Amino acid sequence: MTAMAYDSKLPHVVVLGAGFGGLMFAKEFPAHLARITVVDRQNHHVFQPLLYQVATAGLAAPDIAQPIRAILRDKPNLTVLMAAVQGIDLAAKRVQLDQGTLDFDYLVIALGGQTSYFGHDDWEQFAPGLKTLDDAVRLRRNMLLAYERAEVEPDPVKRAELMTTVVVGGGPTGVELAGSFAELARTVLYRDFDHIDPRQAHILLVEGGPRVLATFPADLSASAQQQLAKLGVDVRLNTKVTAIRENEVELDGRPLRAGNIVWAAGVGASPVTRSLGVETDRAGRIKVRPDLSVPGHPTVFAVGDLATLIDAKGVVVPGVAQGAMQGGTFVAKLLAQDLTVGPRPPEERPAFAYWDKGNMATIGRSKAIAQIGKMHFSGFFAWVMWLALHIVFLVGLRNRISVFVNWIYSYFTYKRGARIIMGEPVTTPPAPGPQASSVS
Amino acid sequence: MTAMAYDSKLPHVVVLGAGFGGLMFAKEFPAHLARITVVDRQNHHVFQPLLYQVATAGLAAPDIAQPIRAILRDKPNLTVLMAAVQGIDLAAKRVQLDQGTLDFDYLVIALGGQTSYFGHDDWEQFAPGLKTLDDAVRLRRNMLLAYERAEVEPDPVKRAELMTTVVVGGGPTGVELAGSFAELARTVLYRDFDHIDPRQAHILLVEGGPRVLATFPADLSASAQQQLAKLGVDVRLNTKVTAIRENEVELDGRPLRAGNIVWAAGVGASPVTRSLGVETDRAGRIKVRPDLSVPGHPTVFAVGDLATLIDAKGVVVPGVAQGAMQGGTFVAKLLAQDLTVGPRPPEERPAFAYWDKGNMATIGRSKAIAQIGKMHFSGFFAWVMWLALHIVFLVGLRNRISVFVNWIYSYFTYKRGARIIMGEPVTTPPAPGPQASSVS
Repeated sequence: MTAMAYDSKLPHVVVLGAGFGGLMFAKEFPAHLARITVVDRQNHHVFQPLLYQVATAGLAAPDIAQPIRAILRDKPNLTVLMAAVQGIDLAAKRVQLDQGTLDFDYLVIALGGQTSYFGHDDWEQFAPGLKTLDDAVRLRRNMLLAYERAEVEPDPVKRAELMTTVVVGGGPTGVELAGSFAELARTVLYRDFDHIDPRQAHILLVEGGPRVLATFPADLSASAQQQLAKLGVDVRLNTKVTAIRENEVELDGRPLRAGNIVWAAGVGASPVTRSLGVETDRAGRIKVRPDLSVPGHPTVFAVGDLATLIDAKGVVVPGVAQGAMQGGTFVAKLLAQDLTVGPRPPEERPAFAYWDKGNMATIGRSKAIAQIGKMHFSGFFAWVMWLALHIVFLVGLRNRISVFVNWIYSYFTYKRGARIIMGEPVTTPPAPGPQASSVS
Repeated sequence: MTAMAYDSKLPHVVVLGAGFGGLMFAKEFPAHLARITVVDRQNHHVFQPLLYQVATAGLAAPDIAQPIRAILRDKPNLTVLMAAVQGIDLAAKRVQLDQGTLDFDYLVIALGGQTSYFGHDDWEQFAPGLKTLDDAVRLRRNMLLAYERAEVEPDPVKRAELMTTVVVGGGPTGVELAGSFAELARTVLYRDFDHIDPRQAHILLVEGGPRVLATFPADLSASAQQQLAKLGVDVRLNTKVTAIRENEVELDGRPLRAGNIVWAAGVGASPVTRSLGVETDRAGRIKVRPDLSVPGHPTVFAVGDLATLIDAKGVVVPGVAQGAMQGGTFVAKLLAQDLTVGPRPPEERPAFAYWDKGNMATIGRSKAIAQIGKMHFSGFFAWVMWLALHIVFLVGLRNRISVFVNWIYSYFTYKRGARIIMGEPVTTPPAPGPQASSVS
């Protein structure tokens, strides 16, 4: 590697992951105090809250992504590496990458989570999750292809099967996906086909617990469920997925055929946490100390979805963007203090306190729920708040303009601009001769 | 397939391909005269003239694509099939698709062209072409990945190699790609990296003939070459590519290492033409009659890149969007007449005459050339004309707004909004340990 421009006497801080937590650390940390290397296996930061809109053809992938180098371009003493983390040696203070190794003085682990199948990893091939832009584009392709196939399918049973979508998991992602899929079929696609009526599409949302959006207050859950019902989503509560096969899901033991099955049920920590030799919870999240340091390693911190903590106020820090961002900011300030006034043992450092600014989820056009402190909102007003906040927090001016234009356009035209099927051609088994020829 | 809404006594017109030619036929043909089936293997029409901007990270893929169903939604008696054409039996009047077969009364073959390697099909894997959105996204990924790899490459020779891009072919696509790659490196990427200077990137444009843009007048070719030189593109005229291997191209027998090699040198007709039993030229294009019908088959027409004709004015109809669109419109009117006043033999039908509305090519920011009749333009004015015309002809209001916003944004910020690497992770051979660890 060529000569580095910055002072090599400064301590080296390695940040793993440029999601909300890692990025916020890199932005907030005073650049003159250390050299920083930000490592991510992608070249871009993804604005995860809008990933489902790429999957449901509302936005193009670049609208919700921003190159990490561009975001951090103006930070001195900072370098960005596109590389995958293969292991962390806490004792040797070294990170193993696919591109080589990195020695660190301080480490911020912010690798986030990944889709978890609770021990049923074989379900992944039949029920993909939604964590990356590639996941979203694949999901969009699979959904749109199912309608294309239904259009030429002579067997009404198979046709109905292709137009059935099962979303597993009633959390925010599941609710947003199911609502958006239902709207796509009923308000957008129905005008496009001659032989099928996409308004007859069957969208199921399957939740193991007694209500959707279980982290919200009960009245908002109920409101969300009503709003889903209005969109024609078939919500199945207290329903367990017992098996998933190709185009088939078992609900409490009863098989159901479906053209698309989407997994939005579980998020686990990045698998690298399990190799650290530190205590993790069942989802693989590191049980961090109140200062967000990793127990036994005061110069190593973990923030975001791969850490778990009951904070100074007795609140479990939730695995949401706000939690990761506040964690990143907290560690940036804490580390700056340590580097300025001298290192402190973890017990003398301040304790992280999560500030719950509120929670919101959107269900569809004019449909959302929001909780801000003790105030609960649902319907149109919550939806407008949701739109405004997501535009504001989206990274990058171009993306904000682009998303804004797309939303205005979709609102007035009932169209979605990214209804294109990309990616490797899917091998469709050639249908028997008569079916397409019956057109002529 | 379910019952058709339209009158099955009407003749059946099958249109193969929804590029400029097929789409224009479908739009212009009077809907009450026949049932129409439009077949395309994609679900979207691509605005090919802007494909290079997706490849060079200026635009997102959905910005230049529009679902075929959405474009033709309001046409009665018309159905869209997403299927791949496997063969055409002209005698039996039947098309073989991967989804079944289609019988036709009239056929419009508008399948366009594909990248041709002039008998060197083994070069494709090392020097991909640019015909589809997937091609464009792959090219974008390969370009951006090369700079990411250069950033961590300790060997200066290999680093220079990664930052070398060879574009083969000095036609409009080659010129646009080379200019845009040079601009991407010199005005956008150079701010993003710490260890490499993308302004040192070496972009070569290799052309076998004596000038670039050979279909334009000589003064405009010269102007384009000057404008390329200003962008730092290394233009090599009268230079033959004698071999292509992985990351290596042989120019007149001399090997040159390059991180990316792009093939923009040849377009041949869709291979289906060769199986028809009709006369084709060396590129596989059908030698159509003056009425654009296929010789010996008065109810079969071919338009666009897979047809070749010297028209009524003695002009060779060029393989450009205008040629395909005018061909589609011509056949729509001709067929409407035949269906209204009765069939005519080909020699009694009108002859197609190409109307050359002008030609333009863009080289970069404020850089373009244009020919309209006897008038020649180059530089800023030609560039503004190019921008305006491409916005106007782009299909879809949302796409027009989105492209306009992106162009305005890029013009003022010197940024490109789609600088994201997507697609399957490329397997990078792990570099030797010392290289990345030297960061720390």
